[in-house]
Amino acid sequence: MNAQNGYDIEDLAVGQSASVSKTITDADIVLFSGVSTDTNAVHLNEEFAKTTMFGGRIAHGMLSAGLISAVLGNRLPGPGTIYMGQTLKFKAPVRPGDTVTATATVKEVVVEKKRAIIETVCTVAGKVVIEGEATMLCTSNKG
Amino acid sequence: MNAQNGYDIEDLAVGQSASVSKTITDADIVLFSGVSTDTNAVHLNEEFAKTTMFGGRIAHGMLSAGLISAVLGNRLPGPGTIYMGQTLKFKAPVRPGDTVTATATVKEVVVEKKRAIIETVCTVAGKVVIEGEATMLCTSNKG
Repeated sequence: MNAQNGYDIEDLAVGQSASVSKTITDADIVLFSGVSTDTNAVHLNEEFAKTTMFGGRIAHGMLSAGLISAVLGNRLPGPGTIYMGQTLKFKAPVRPGDTVTATATVKEVVVEKKRAIIETVCTVAGKVVIEGEATMLCTSNKG
Repeated sequence: MNAQNGYDIEDLAVGQSASVSKTITDADIVLFSGVSTDTNAVHLNEEFAKTTMFGGRIAHGMLSAGLISAVLGNRLPGPGTIYMGQTLKFKAPVRPGDTVTATATVKEVVVEKKRAIIETVCTVAGKVVIEGEATMLCTSNKG
């Protein structure tokens, strides 16, 4: 553990895992639309969204991706680590009322570079909605 | 143009480009923290953030990435397209008050698969803060 209660690179082991979950509400979609300026009708207009392949409003993919940022920054590796990169594959839509679980699992640890590759998956009721990988620059107990 | 005023795959050409810009304020950081549950102290606690390598609070990387979602979903290719994937490399921090410009530039068009690869770059005062690539499933004027 580092001074901020995050994991140092030396504390990480392949397979280690942590999750956060949150219900994505209408309020989240409205707020994210304002923050991002992404006001696409498929997120905000139910009458229009009903006419699309989704059959109703869906949340922004990048909103659910925010939960990945949360599990990485707050849980594993946690505070003190620096977010270097992320890949995201959007596999299925998230709808208002869905509870998204973001899970981070350590895939690779490169101690000498203080770098960890973390598999990142978001699910709704067990179904994968986003998958990808994060690259984190970690703290070290050697300073 | 498709029925929603987005570009069909047949309208896209390599090099075509569009941008959106937004000033990232304290309000955005607070709202994004609530929406994402990412309440890391480096985003919310100025006294703490001053002690880090960043020297003060920074915005969530995924908040600026929201502007990429906006330029893709609202401008190029625009409404009607489906976001399939995104890579993100976080190159430099974004601070409260910074104006982020997200630019999408068409890199590759695969008409038969209705798929476009779009280069996505976020800058602050001309400096790259995020770079990466989006994969979009586009509409077609052939239905």
